[in-house]
This record gives sequence, structure tokens and C-alpha cells, in this order.
Amino acid sequence: MSDPVATSAAGGAQPTQGPPRPFFASRWVMVPEHVRDLGPDHGLPAGFRAAGVACGIKPSGNPDLGLIVCDCEKPVSAARFAATGAPAAPLLLSRERCELSALRVVLANSGCANAATGKRGMEDAAKTQGAAAIAVGAEPREVILGSTGPIGSYLPVERMLGGIRNAAERLDQAGDSCFQQAIQTTDALEKRACLQVELDAGVVELTAQCKGAGMISPRFATMLCYIQTDAQMASETADLLLGVCVKRSFDRCSVDGQLSTNDTAVLMCSGISGVKIEPESEDERLFGEALDALLRQLAIYMVVDGEGAGRIARVHAQGPDPDTVELAARAVANSPLVKAALHGGDPNWGRIVQAVGGALPTAEPLALDVFIDGVQVCSAGASTDVPRQELAGLLARPEVEFLVRLPGEGAETEVFFSDLSHEYVSINADYTT
Amino acid sequence: MSDPVATSAAGGAQPTQGPPRPFFASRWVMVPEHVRDLGPDHGLPAGFRAAGVACGIKPSGNPDLGLIVCDCEKPVSAARFAATGAPAAPLLLSRERCELSALRVVLANSGCANAATGKRGMEDAAKTQGAAAIAVGAEPREVILGSTGPIGSYLPVERMLGGIRNAAERLDQAGDSCFQQAIQTTDALEKRACLQVELDAGVVELTAQCKGAGMISPRFATMLCYIQTDAQMASETADLLLGVCVKRSFDRCSVDGQLSTNDTAVLMCSGISGVKIEPESEDERLFGEALDALLRQLAIYMVVDGEGAGRIARVHAQGPDPDTVELAARAVANSPLVKAALHGGDPNWGRIVQAVGGALPTAEPLALDVFIDGVQVCSAGASTDVPRQELAGLLARPEVEFLVRLPGEGAETEVFFSDLSHEYVSINADYTT
Repeated sequence: MSDPVATSAAGGAQPTQGPPRPFFASRWVMVPEHVRDLGPDHGLPAGFRAAGVACGIKPSGNPDLGLIVCDCEKPVSAARFAATGAPAAPLLLSRERCELSALRVVLANSGCANAATGKRGMEDAAKTQGAAAIAVGAEPREVILGSTGPIGSYLPVERMLGGIRNAAERLDQAGDSCFQQAIQTTDALEKRACLQVELDAGVVELTAQCKGAGMISPRFATMLCYIQTDAQMASETADLLLGVCVKRSFDRCSVDGQLSTNDTAVLMCSGISGVKIEPESEDERLFGEALDALLRQLAIYMVVDGEGAGRIARVHAQGPDPDTVELAARAVANSPLVKAALHGGDPNWGRIVQAVGGALPTAEPLALDVFIDGVQVCSAGASTDVPRQELAGLLARPEVEFLVRLPGEGAETEVFFSDLSHEYVSINADYTT
Repeated sequence: MSDPVATSAAGGAQPTQGPPRPFFASRWVMVPEHVRDLGPDHGLPAGFRAAGVACGIKPSGNPDLGLIVCDCEKPVSAARFAATGAPAAPLLLSRERCELSALRVVLANSGCANAATGKRGMEDAAKTQGAAAIAVGAEPREVILGSTGPIGSYLPVERMLGGIRNAAERLDQAGDSCFQQAIQTTDALEKRACLQVELDAGVVELTAQCKGAGMISPRFATMLCYIQTDAQMASETADLLLGVCVKRSFDRCSVDGQLSTNDTAVLMCSGISGVKIEPESEDERLFGEALDALLRQLAIYMVVDGEGAGRIARVHAQGPDPDTVELAARAVANSPLVKAALHGGDPNWGRIVQAVGGALPTAEPLALDVFIDGVQVCSAGASTDVPRQELAGLLARPEVEFLVRLPGEGAETEVFFSDLSHEYVSINADYTT
């Protein structure tokens, strides 16, 4: 197996390396037997075409505008958005004016997030939505928008209108790679997959294009993920499956703990395979497992590709209730001290204790257990005095596992996170200027 | 005036530069007219002696154990501790077994935090407390403990007992500088002051020794602050004044948003001046103003001296209620993206909008106003399109001011924070190994 972490050790500032091969590479993703990786060049499922073009949003002249169109009669879809008080215009417009259960078109751009742009940003977004609808023969409410790039600048609408016409002429079932290029900026890894899923009712395809390097990173400004399948299902099923799988993937990762203004995930179903997924059926479970593996691996690639990331970790928290384990896991994953130690391969687990203690100011000291890849370093709040040399080897791995056990039982959670490196600082210290 | 920020630009990894001169230097501290800086070599107020020695806790052989003793008959004191679920043994022992309103002795060490050390850590702490009590002729309950250093290792108790005897022999009214040396590790600035305060009832002195580079930084592991005065007051007055002033100073700063296991602040009053501060008197207000200015300036020096810090900022949040402005201000101050932009002198205010939005996931978009040093960059959530060149100059200053105005009125707060630099990563990536 290739090593997804080592190959991206140079971090987000490197040129795109293409999609990782094979797609499934993390020890934290269980790949179901009924799922097969078709390779990145397989193209989209039946009923989908995509394109990506350069229209001059990015000063570099790189691709910056992408379209996906579903050609079936009655497309079915579902979407999820960032829960932020500062939503970008494309997110707001999509949430308020789109028919999210019957989306036909994705219009996405990089190079400008169209966030913190107020009324003018909404008008700009509406113009591009209308133009995309006309260009592909759809209704505006069928066109979902996604934008990514710096926050606080306005869209170059005229250039985008030209780009939309251009992209509409280039739509192709093998256009997923071009689309991906157009939505990413400096992602080092192409986070993209084409899978085959064997269900009892027949074989379907499942593809996804994803960009981003964490919850937020204004260098790319946000996470966008577009998922397509030729399976047939009711919109309630699509919504349920997307909701559950997003919670177990994109909701569980953090590069810098920063929530985006633009995060959007969209599942679109053409139904053209004729393979129908009934609610609460075995096939629903099988398709859900495939979607789960797909999104978890994509989420982990986002962390692997986190700005400047050289090493990633999973914190697994166990304890008395969901709120407590969530606070503990997030505190560890977002601690710059834990992340810097991870970067240095330093088994400084005291920072895990400190981070959990800071997040849970209990009256009595917490009787915490901490394990690094199965080796117990802290028992009921006290050091087990394992020599640091013994631990250093565990931290040298590309995927490090921390278990934090709080007193009490009944709840557990996990968060995937990246380290804090010099490159993160370099990337983020002078981005807009 | 000297520039405290510029002089510490090289950050926490530099050798100590001595105390900044003059002490009061930040634009965010109002220095009352009745307060005079006596200079760092003035020594402690009447009734106090201190010492600092090297006893071998630190492998470097640098000073690592300090004592302060109050020689009056009935000392009065107050203390505040970190609110953490993972309190260090010295914090726990002090909180549970000390007579916090009548402390006579401070025993503090650097080089080991005695945190995450369980029962053995408590026994070790108790041994050193008992030894200090015997060495200076006090009761154990009169000895408050403070430790700072890496989390998860045990105190070298035998060496410390020798150090305590040695320090007790060297106690001196001019020992505050040696004490300070013994509690700091790689603080670049000596955070220390000797002030004179003119009250209606007479003149008193007020001194402090402080160490740390933020809420937590296991390189120094914690903030410790010891304050002495020869003013006379009831313990309730001492407690009230310390509580209010800590809330306006140490509680309002962040280097990395990480709460320590060991934070401790102690005010001790010898009363030897004979100048009595009555509750709710004008002199209580005047003394409170002096203590406030002292602790705010010390807190700002902690941020200036934040690990790797080159530039600091204040975020001033205004809005409808205390919880909302607190969430907004903390989100900005703890955002690695905002901090990295501050480091780069990059006016990327979109990250402020993103951070506030992430912290306040409201149903409707927040109509945020954002100002950088008086220049409005965001109005009701939308960019004012001020050219970036105009803003860059504002970010080049050593102390940058951000105002975040949320809809609604009635509450405001502030947080002081440092930037995120390469040096922070270097310092924290390989600390223990």
C-alpha cells in the first residue's frame, strides 16, 4: 500500500500530485468487501457530466470554475452546509433558494469565497446561478453554488459568465478530473475517487470530488465535496445517508479548529442504473457503508493535506456522556501544543492531560487514562513513567492514535487532526497580500 | 518610552533580557497619577524577604527554586488558581490545605510542573511544603506552592530539600530578582515591578514577580504571579482586589488558548507600613487602580513574551450580552488563522469574520462591523473594500487593535493575544525530548 501521509509530507503548498493510489489507505477506514476502487480515471456514473475551466478569477490563470450536470429526468439530491453565523453568499443562496432534494447542477468556483460580501455578494451569486441555469437548460433553484477562496472580496461576475458558457460546452462524463482541478487551489492531493458498489439489487457507481485542507483554510477557503451516484433512491434516503456519513467524516476532522464560511457537501443521484435502494433495506445499509468509507477516507485526506501537515493523528475519547467526550476530543485535536508536539514526533502526552483538563474544569481532578497506540502513559491522572525513548517510535509513524479514557462509560467519539508545522505558519502568515 | 514589543521580538527562546524599562509601556494600560515606578532594583516592600537558588531540578543548572517569606506577625493574603480538571499537585495541595487568607511563605520551583503525578505528586508536594515550613519557622498551611515545567514528571524531592535549606539562608529584602530568576525558565522578559502608591492615608509599596508566556506554555509550564505590599488590609479586601484585577488582566490574555495545570496568583500583605486600606474607601479604589495597572501590564508582557511572539493585539468585542462578546473575542484571539495573519502583518480581516461566525452559529448571518485601529473594514457583514495597502501599515505596529461590533448593545470585553510564528512551532515541537 502506498503511504498517503508520507507522499504529502511536503504539505499544501506543493503542486498537485494527482489522486493518491490506491484510494483507500488509512488504517482508520474499514473498506467493505462489496466496494471496489475503479481508479481515478474511470469517470462519472451514468447520468453525470462535468467540466472545469479557467475564467480569470485566480490571478494565476489556473482553472477556477467548475460545472456538474445531472442529465436524468428527476434527479434526487441532498446537501449539508457549515453551521456558521457568517455564511458566505453562495451558501446562503443555496440554502434559501435551492430545491435541495432535487438539484441538477453544481456551479463551483475557486479564487474567491464570496463571503463577507453582504447584499452585493448575494446579487452576484444569483447572477451566476441564473447564468448556469440558462447555460445547461435548468431552473435556477436546481443550481447549487459553491465558492472557495479569500474572504471579503467580490466575485468577478462578468468573467464568470463567460466561464459558465465555456464550461457548459465542455461537459463530459470524464470531466470529473477537470472539475476537481477547478475547485481546488493549492491542495497537494487530488481528493477524488470512483468506486463500484455491489448491492443485492445490482451494481452501482459512486464518485466524489472534494477539496480543502481542514475545517477551514482561507488559502483554499473551505471544504467542498460533491458526490454522485447512478443508484436510485428517494430524497429522504439520500438525505439520511449523507447526514449520517458527514457526521462520521467531515464533522470529525480538524486542521486548525476553524469553521469555514463556505463548507458544502452535496450528494446527487441520477438513478440511471435502475438499481433502487429502498428505505431500511439491506442495500441501504450496504450503500451507506460504501458512502461512509468514501467520506471517511476523503476526510482523512483533507487532514493529511492539512496546511503544512506532515503527520496526522486520531484522538479516540471514551467517557460518561457525549458532551464530555466531544469536549475532550476537540480540546486535544485543536490544541496547538498537542499539534506542535505531534509535528516534532515528541511524546509529550502531558499536553493531552492539560488540554482535557482545560476543557473540563471539574471540581475534582480528572482520573484520566491516556494511551499512545496502545501504550498506557497516564493512569488515573498519574504518569506511568514509561521512558520517553520507548514512546518516541510511536510518534514517528504517519498515523498516530491517542486514546483518552475519562471515568464513566457509555459514550465515545473520535477526531482526526493534523500537526502544527512551520509550513502552516508560512502558508497563513501572508496569504492575501 | 522604550518599546516593549520590539525589544522582545526575538521571542521566548532568547536569554533573559532583564526587566523592561520603564515598566509601564502599553497603550492599553492607564497608569494612575498616584502610582510611581521605583525601578526593578528597589527591592521588596517592608516585611518581605526572598531568595532564589539552583538545586538541580533543571538539567541546565540554572536557578530553579525560590522562596518568599513575610516577616510580620499576622500576614494577610489572597490567591487565585487555574480552573482546570487536571490541576497540578502543588495547586491542589495549596487549594485544599493552605490557609489562603493568611499565607506567610511562597515556595516555587521551575523545571518540573509536578502535574499528572497523582498520589505520589501530592506526597512529594507535601514533603517540600513541610520542609519550607521548618526552614523558615512557619506552619505548613502557611506555605503556598507553585511549580512550573514539563507535565508528567516527578519532583526530585531530595535535591529540593537541599535547595530549600539553601534558599532559607539567603532570604533578603532585595531577593526579588533572584526569586524571579528561579521561577522563570526561558521567559525573554523579566516580568517584575516595584511600585510606590500614594494613598490618602500614606504611601505604600507594591511589588510583583511574574513568569509565563501565556495561559499555558509547557516550555515554562504555566503562569505564576506573586504580589507583595506593605499596605494593611483585611483578607476580604485582599481577596476582592486580587479577584477583580486578575479578571481584568491574566483572565484576558491568551498566547495559545491553552489553560495551564498550574496557574497561580498570590497577593500577600505585610501591613508594616501601617497604612490601612478600609473596605469601600477611596484608598481601596486608589490601591485597586494601582494593582489593576500592575497586573494588566504584567499580563500584556506575558503576551508580548508569548512563545515566539513578534506582535500583539487586543480584540475589543461589543455586543448584546456578556456570553456573546466573550465567545466572539475568544474565537478571534485563539484563531490560528488570525494569529498567523497578525504574524505576517497581513490585514486579512476575513478571518476575523470567519472566526466569529464559527463561534456564533446564528440562524441569520451576523451583521458584523470590524475595525482595524479605527478603520472600518467590514460593515454589517460586508466588506467596505478598503484597499489592502491602506491597511497594511496598521498591521505593522507592535500593538494592533481590532474592534468587533455585533448587533445589539450592553456588553463588551477584550482579549490580548500574540501572533503565531515559526518560533512558536519550533519551541513547542520538541520541548521535552
